[in-house]
This record gives sequence, structure tokens and C-alpha cells, in this order.
Amino acid sequence: MYKAPTEEIAHILRHVAGLNAAIDAGKAGDLDGDVLDAIVEEAGRFASERMAPALADGDHQGARLAKGDVTTPEGWPTIYREWREGGWNALTGPQAHGGQELPMALSTALFEIWNSASMGFAIGPSLTIGAVEALIQHGSDALRARYLDKLVSGEWMGTMNLTEPQAGSDLSGMKTRAEPAGDGTYRIFGSKIYITYGEQDFTDNIVHLVLARLPDAPAGVKGISLFLVPKFLVNEDGSLGARNDVVCSALEKKLGIHGSPTCTMIYGDGTGNTGERGAIGWLVGEENRGLACMFTMMNNARLLVGIQGVGVAEAATQKALDFARERRQGRSTRLAKGPEGKSQMSAIVDHPDVARMLLTMKALTGAARSICYACGHAGDMAKHHAGTGETDAARSWKDRVDLLTPIAKAFSTDIGVEVANLGIQVHGGMGFVEETGAARLLRDARIAPIYEGTNGIQAIDLVTRKIGLSGGGAVESYMLELRAVLEALEGRDAPDFGRSAAALDAALRELETATRYLQDALARGETDTALAGATAYLKLFGLCAGGIYLVKSALASDPDGARTALARFMAENLLAECAGLSTQVREGAESLAFGRIALGLEAA
Amino acid sequence: MYKAPTEEIAHILRHVAGLNAAIDAGKAGDLDGDVLDAIVEEAGRFASERMAPALADGDHQGARLAKGDVTTPEGWPTIYREWREGGWNALTGPQAHGGQELPMALSTALFEIWNSASMGFAIGPSLTIGAVEALIQHGSDALRARYLDKLVSGEWMGTMNLTEPQAGSDLSGMKTRAEPAGDGTYRIFGSKIYITYGEQDFTDNIVHLVLARLPDAPAGVKGISLFLVPKFLVNEDGSLGARNDVVCSALEKKLGIHGSPTCTMIYGDGTGNTGERGAIGWLVGEENRGLACMFTMMNNARLLVGIQGVGVAEAATQKALDFARERRQGRSTRLAKGPEGKSQMSAIVDHPDVARMLLTMKALTGAARSICYACGHAGDMAKHHAGTGETDAARSWKDRVDLLTPIAKAFSTDIGVEVANLGIQVHGGMGFVEETGAARLLRDARIAPIYEGTNGIQAIDLVTRKIGLSGGGAVESYMLELRAVLEALEGRDAPDFGRSAAALDAALRELETATRYLQDALARGETDTALAGATAYLKLFGLCAGGIYLVKSALASDPDGARTALARFMAENLLAECAGLSTQVREGAESLAFGRIALGLEAA
Repeated sequence: MYKAPTEEIAHILRHVAGLNAAIDAGKAGDLDGDVLDAIVEEAGRFASERMAPALADGDHQGARLAKGDVTTPEGWPTIYREWREGGWNALTGPQAHGGQELPMALSTALFEIWNSASMGFAIGPSLTIGAVEALIQHGSDALRARYLDKLVSGEWMGTMNLTEPQAGSDLSGMKTRAEPAGDGTYRIFGSKIYITYGEQDFTDNIVHLVLARLPDAPAGVKGISLFLVPKFLVNEDGSLGARNDVVCSALEKKLGIHGSPTCTMIYGDGTGNTGERGAIGWLVGEENRGLACMFTMMNNARLLVGIQGVGVAEAATQKALDFARERRQGRSTRLAKGPEGKSQMSAIVDHPDVARMLLTMKALTGAARSICYACGHAGDMAKHHAGTGETDAARSWKDRVDLLTPIAKAFSTDIGVEVANLGIQVHGGMGFVEETGAARLLRDARIAPIYEGTNGIQAIDLVTRKIGLSGGGAVESYMLELRAVLEALEGRDAPDFGRSAAALDAALRELETATRYLQDALARGETDTALAGATAYLKLFGLCAGGIYLVKSALASDPDGARTALARFMAENLLAECAGLSTQVREGAESLAFGRIALGLEAA
Repeated sequence: MYKAPTEEIAHILRHVAGLNAAIDAGKAGDLDGDVLDAIVEEAGRFASERMAPALADGDHQGARLAKGDVTTPEGWPTIYREWREGGWNALTGPQAHGGQELPMALSTALFEIWNSASMGFAIGPSLTIGAVEALIQHGSDALRARYLDKLVSGEWMGTMNLTEPQAGSDLSGMKTRAEPAGDGTYRIFGSKIYITYGEQDFTDNIVHLVLARLPDAPAGVKGISLFLVPKFLVNEDGSLGARNDVVCSALEKKLGIHGSPTCTMIYGDGTGNTGERGAIGWLVGEENRGLACMFTMMNNARLLVGIQGVGVAEAATQKALDFARERRQGRSTRLAKGPEGKSQMSAIVDHPDVARMLLTMKALTGAARSICYACGHAGDMAKHHAGTGETDAARSWKDRVDLLTPIAKAFSTDIGVEVANLGIQVHGGMGFVEETGAARLLRDARIAPIYEGTNGIQAIDLVTRKIGLSGGGAVESYMLELRAVLEALEGRDAPDFGRSAAALDAALRELETATRYLQDALARGETDTALAGATAYLKLFGLCAGGIYLVKSALASDPDGARTALARFMAENLLAECAGLSTQVREGAESLAFGRIALGLEAA
């Protein structure tokens, strides 16, 4: 059963993401190291002892729908109540609305823990956080007064309603419409799909944020506005009023996260008892600026999806390692060498190929964790410096969040799938039967590379927007920071790192070369050339950054040598892939374009 | 819906695997090119028109168990009857027992087709083939006379009973026991798990092949014998007699292949009405030589698992390509360049990253297909030359089968998972809902890297046994053959291949270097060093061989340029990984061993 790696999590937050430095410089509000440790410890205890055991069966039950009402798996509403009563939903919310205003980096770390316990559960609260963010940034005073307290406490949950059948990654084709009622409210009509926790039995009310089109709005994404549509209207005194005209009409039958209801939501079909036709909604932000409102949330939302990958990867790694230490099959050369137990079988972890899989899982998980925490911390620093009016610092930290976000999202969710997949393999036949839970982790992990912008879209974002930030200065300064870690390693007399420094140096040079290649291609207007290598480039970036973060972690403190050994394994084994990825970036575009013939799209 | 790529399949059989050469040299029995084409065409028609549509829903229904009886999904028994009445089960069986004695290479190709239609269905008949093989090689005349006709026709199905809970990859701990009854029969007691189609409603009788231990047998794998245990005893006249003492007590709840019953089988618990306690069985082969009997089947069985990977990969590629040509999202630069349809969205296949995924899927599928067919053909040639008494040729072809088998099994099943995984990604959100069927292909594909020897075990087999065959001569001559293809390419004035020749040459050099490195390490007795790089080596081998086979295919004939474009994409993009894999083989072992500290297995 999952046990939250609280010591490791606190270490990465403090020494790799940079919280210690922020605390020392007085840039982390009320947070100090002891408080940080205590919060992580307490969250870990609740997740390991209470959540993971109670939520595990939910996958087999799944969420069910009857007459518009959704029933989540047995015990889930209880755990949700305990969780929010523990204050965990309010961690990052504004103090004015009952929140604790703790750093996003810390929240990211805790979301790793919740996702390890159950991704299908944790995805719900991560959407509420997005709704809070949207209202803080764009909601009117009246909307904030009426909704924020309860969303911050988690007494109500929030949802995001973007997707329609014809409008997935591309929202320009959206059809849901909003008609002004003349009294400052709107009536919403249309249907949305893939709405996570669109209906549930955790909370009394649900606050939907819905993208829709006003009459006579411009075509395309510039004609989309954002509306708040509560399931139940809220009276002046905060009590619940009439049922709004919105209903869940279907649940998706999904590959994974079965406990999490994925809803088709119908707005304005006559459900509800408001006496009005159409779901009553309130504009959030300006008319036709809905997409901009969504974009302000997007960095956070993408990071919170990235951390789903880390959470599942950590759970998969622990499960596989536990299994591999217990399961005995064959005799490894290790055992054969020893004098003892000639007739005994080896634990499978003693077979080099099994150890290779487990080390790959552990290294990739640690790498992705570091990138996600660093991304969260950069967001905190950007906010802090914006607050103190240090605009240069704010800008450079904002660049950092923007740069790291697509990597945090895509690299972490890709390794989430890869690690969960390796976890099945370690289990052998038992990995394919659902009983062990290893298969569930792959099923759950599989959605994360898709939603909140597919990983292909993240790669395009990285290449076409992010490596050009501040004229290329953002990526340049980040690579210099990575190089500084290598220089620190080279400055040590650290034989346990083996050939890590040389391997990492070679990988980083590939990243530098590939970056310049892409910047040049874009400068020449060769967008397709740059796009062809985008996914390989993102992986190269993630491997380099993650590999160097593992070194940074080991250099900071490594009482038992485990961090050094892991960093070395990653450098000397996994980073070997970097040269090939760089080649793909620099030399792959032509044959990709030519490949259209092989897909039957063009004649030779 | 799946449409069997019959033209491509016949082309690979003829020009890449080598059937044309064999036919020309009179080494393919009665088979000629036209017959080959006709058989592939007919199989493709039945699979595309009848099997794929009728079997698809089976996954949602799954197989069910009630009181020892298994019900497969609706329509499955009917399809099975039509399939075997079409003569497809008898393709490779001996003519003396009603079979057609057609080549294994052809059978492999047809199994690709059946697996594309439904892996959960096709896995059943592939086990019957194994049972036929075991009886031909090791069964007594009496057993062959009684069972072979019906197994060859498919009127009865066969099963393999190896695994017990404590004995997975390592069979030495097996506990099922066989007691001699004194009349030449045995009584079997024990239980087996993961028995595919151990019970079913396709056929009147089921012929179980069961590994068990005789009283006073030596410990370990040298004390295991093989027994034939029919579900119903068979009378002298071939009619069915008493129900034997064997029953299915449970079905596994699995990640995929839900239509296929995976049974726990209980031998000797009192079920049946033979009047005897214990399941009545007959010895196959010699006492305590059961494992050797299994090994004679293993090459075929592993190849038939490899082709499952190809079959699922082909189905996933077709599904994703169909989707990507229909689905419209965003505007690609391709569309932006054209004058037409400013307001129109692009088909997603026009986005470079989607095209990259599809080409990766298609290239890997084609590569694995070629390796599997070549492996099957080598088996046919070994058998042919053994029959004609040409022992040198027989030996060298046997080496070739032995060398290619672990690659055919592991590379193909790994890419099966990878391709199905990419297929989901191409579908976006629709890939995660079960409705589209993309998710099912990943769930199905996931078992193949595990059973019939995990892919880690295949890699160990390749490194520790296969690259040493004939003193290293087997692998040497294979690499020379690959190089000859490159030389043929270099001899052409073929600008459409771009930089393929250079990329393939570099990859092949990495394979040569890595091979020598491993041979040297083994010669020095450094087994752990060799084992550490085994999986990377197998992948390197598969990529090189597959990439070069795509060139061989294109050089043979390429009317529309599609084969050339695909070979070039693979060479210039996917083969970039080879250098890194070679580095892992040659430089990864030390940090892997050191990594035990990171897994908490050793102190620093």
C-alpha cells in the first residue's frame, strides 16, 4: 500500500525547487522549514493511512448515474468531507476567504500525494482550485462574495466546461450560447462533454464555469465568454435556492479514473425549477474574453495535471518495488555467488533487468517531481515579486513558469504512463490481472497526456512560444542554471557519481544545440521544421532538466547515498537517449514531411 | 473498421521474409505465389468482413463463468465454427491428419490478421497449434491417432497448463502431481492458473496439456513431465466418454482480452464422472522430460505471441489513421499556405506532430511484421532442410529461428503496446473513452510482453544464448545479411531515400559494436554486465533489423513510393535512438549495479 515519501518530497521542495532559498530571503510569507515539513508529514499521514486504503476499491465500483444524480464509489464522499475538513482544500486560497495562502509549490507537492492515493479522487479538487483562481482574477465583487468562501473551503466544488463534441483542442467551433436576460444575468443553452465531476455527491452545490458564445459574438475563439452557472442558485444569505436548468445526462465509460464521474452536461433543456428556461449564469470577466480568463488559469491547471503523472508514477514505483522484493523466481547471479541457500530462489529485484525497470521508474518519477515543484515555485516567486513591485524579477520568474509549464505537464504525464507500464511488467502475469492494482495505475495515468492540452500541443507551445520568451533569454538563463549544477558537481571530489558529469554535460550540450537549431528555424520562418521536432525536443528538455535536478538533490544532502546512486543511474543510462532525440529535432523534419506519402496523403 | 492489408502482407512474405526465393528454389512444397496471394486475400476478407465486426463487442461482455461452464461473448462460438470450417485451423497441420502443411511463415501472417480482428479470439487457436506440435513431436502413436485429427481441424481445442501461483517464469517450484495408475495412465492432482481458454463453449472437447511432477521425481525443472488430459475421455471409436476430473474454478478479471477466458483449472477435486479420483492423463514424451517437450513448442509459441503485437499494432494504426483523416481541429501551416478555405479547420493528420505519431506507428508495425515473418520463414527452411538431410543448411536456418525468436517475441509485443498507446493519443479525449475501441487495443496488447516468457527473459535469452550460437557465427551472418541490403541501397541512385543509407549504416555499426561488446563480456564471465544491457540490446537489434527490412521491402517493389517514404522516416527518425541504446549496452551496467543503493537493497 502507498506510503507518502514525505521526507523526499520536503527535500525536493526545499533544496531543488528552491523553497529554502525563498524562506531565507523572506519571500515565502509565513512559511518556514519546520512548518513545511509538518504540513507535508501530516498530508502524507492522511493520504497513506486514510485515503489510499479507503479509495482503492472505487475503481471497480465506478461512478454511477441515475436520473441526473451521480453516486461516487462507497466511502468517497466521507473521505472528501474529512479531507476538506482537514483544511486541505483551503491551502492556497486567499486568507480573505478563509484560505491559507500557502505557496503553489507546496500545493503541487500535496497534490502529488493526493494523486498517489487516488487520481480519480484528486482530480475533483484540482478543478475547484481552478475555479477559485478564475474568480479571484476575473470575477466581480458580487460573485466573489457569494461563491469564494465555500469554494475555498471545499464545501462546494467547481468545474470547468470547455469541450463540446466538435470542439476539443480547438475551441473555435464552440456552439453553446448565452443570452442576456436584461437583468445582468444570462441564460445558457447547449451541451458540454468530458466534464470532470460535473455532477457528484460530495457537495451540496456545484459551481460550473462555462464557456459560451453571446449573440452576435465574433466567430472563432474571440467570441467566447465565460459564465458562472451554479447547480443551485444561491440566495443573498448564502442559502441554496432553486435548482438551475443544468443536468448531467450521461457518464463516459472510460479506460481509467473510474471513480471520477466524467459527465455530459446539458444546459437549458428544462431541468430545474427556477421558473426560467435556460440555465441562469453570470458573466465572469469581460464579454468575448472568456478564453483569456481560461488562459490565466491554464498554467496552474497544466501543472496540476503534470503532478498527476508524478503521483501515479510514485504509486506505481512503490507497488512494483514492494512486489519485486517479495516475489521469488529463478536464481540471479548475485545469489549464485553467495554461499548461502543453494536451493533458494532470488527475489526478482536481484535480477538486473528487473532492477533496471525499477530504477528507471524511480529516476523518471524523481525527475518529473523536481520539474513540477520547480515550476510551482517559479509561479510563487512571480506572484511574490509582482506583489512587491519588483517587475524585472517578476518578469523573469513569470518567464520561468511559462517555460517550465509545458514540460511539467507533458514530460510528467508521459513518464506517468511509462512508469505505470513498467510497473505492470515488473509484476509479470499478476500485473495484467486487476486484483493487484498495477493495471489500474496505467489506466488512470493514460488520460493525463491527453487533457488540459494534449502533450503534442504542449510541445508546440514549448517550441513556438516558450523558447522565444524574452528573445530567447528565458531558456538561455535556465540552461545556464542547469549548467551551474553541473559545475558544482565537477567541483566536488565525488567518485560515487561515476561518469555522471560527462554524461550530463553531453546531454546538456545536445539541449543547447537543439534549442539553437529550433530558434534559428523559427527565425527563418520554417515553422513546420520546428513543429516536426517539438515532441522529441520536449522529451530532451525534460530528461536533461530532470537528470540535473537529481544531481542537485544529491549534492544538497544524501545521507545514505541513495540520491547519488539514482542520479548516476539516470545520467549514465537514461540520458543516453538525449543524443538521438537531438538528432530527431535537427534531422527529422524532412523525412516526416516526406512521410505523408506513406500515409496515403500525397502521391510521390 | 479493420481492413486486412493483404497486399502488403503478401509482399512482405514474398520479398522480405523470403518466400519467393523458397518457391523459386522448390523449397516451399506445393505453395506458389498465386496460391499464397489467394490464401492471404481470402483470410483477409473473412477477417475484415466477418470476424472484426462480429467480435468487437466481445470485450464489453467478456467471458463469464457459472458452475464450471464458461460462456464466451455472444456470436463468438459461431465465428469460431465458421473460421474452422473455413479450414483456417488446419493450415499448418500434417496432411496425414487432415492438415494442409502450409508454411509457418504464412500461418504467422494469417495470425496477424486474426489478431487484428480480435486478439482475445485469436489467442485460442494459437494454443491449439501448440498442442498439435507437442503431440506430433512427442506423443505416442495411440495419442496421435486419437487426438490429432480433431485438433488439426479445430473441432477440439488444446490448452497449455504450466503456471501455478508460486511458479511463473520459474517452473522449478511446480507442485501439481501425477500418480501412475498402473495401467499406463496417470491421475493428476493440483491447480493451474492463467490457463487461456481452459474452459470454453467453442468446442465439445478440450485437450489439456499439463505439466506435473511424478512421485519421486527429481527436484526442480528436471522432475517435470507432460501429460495429456482431455476434458471428456475419448472412446475407441472417437466418441466422447466420461467427464474427466478437471474443472474451471475461476476466471481472472483482466486488463484486456476480456472475451478470452483465463481460467484457474483444478485437477482431481472430484468433479467428473469417470469413477476415478484424479484427472485421468496420458504421458506425452518421456518421464521427467516435460520441459524439453514444452521447449520444442516454444519457438512457435513465442512467434505467435510476437505476431499478436503486430496484429494489434496494425489495427491500432488503421484506426488512428482513419480518425486523423476525419477529425478536424485547428489550422495546420499546410492549410494556411493554401489559398482555399480560410475558415476551414485542418484534418488533424495535417499537423506534423500527429503525422509523426502515425508514421511511428506504421513504421514500427511494418518493422515488427517483417521480423516475425522472417522468423517464421526461417523455421520453415530449417524444417525443409532437415527433411532433405541437408544438415548444414538445416543448422544454419535453425540458428536463424533461434536468434530471431526472442526479437520477434519481445520487440513486436513492446511495439504493440507502444503503437496502441500512440493510437490513443492520436484520438485525444476520444481515445480514453471505451466507445472508440482505441483503449481496448492498448488493454489487449498489454499482456503480450508478459506471457510466453516475459520480454526481460527474451532479452536474457538473446544475450546469453542466441548471440553465442555457432560460436557467434549465427549473429554474424545475420548482420552480414542486413549489411547486404544496405549495400543494395547504396548501389541504387535513389534520392527518395534521403539520408537513409547513412542513418542505417550508423545504426548497424552500433549493433555490431554492441554485439561484440556483449560477446566479450560473456567470454570474460561478466554475466551481470551482459544482462544489464540485455533489454536495450534487444531493442537496438529490433530497430536495426526492422529498419533495414523496410528498405528491403521498398527496394523490392514500390509502385506509389509509400514504402520508400516509410523506410526513410524510420531510418532518419526512429533509428536515431540506436546510438543511445548502444551506449546503454556498453556503459550502463556499472550504474545499474550501483543503483541497488537507490532501491534500498544495499548500503552505500
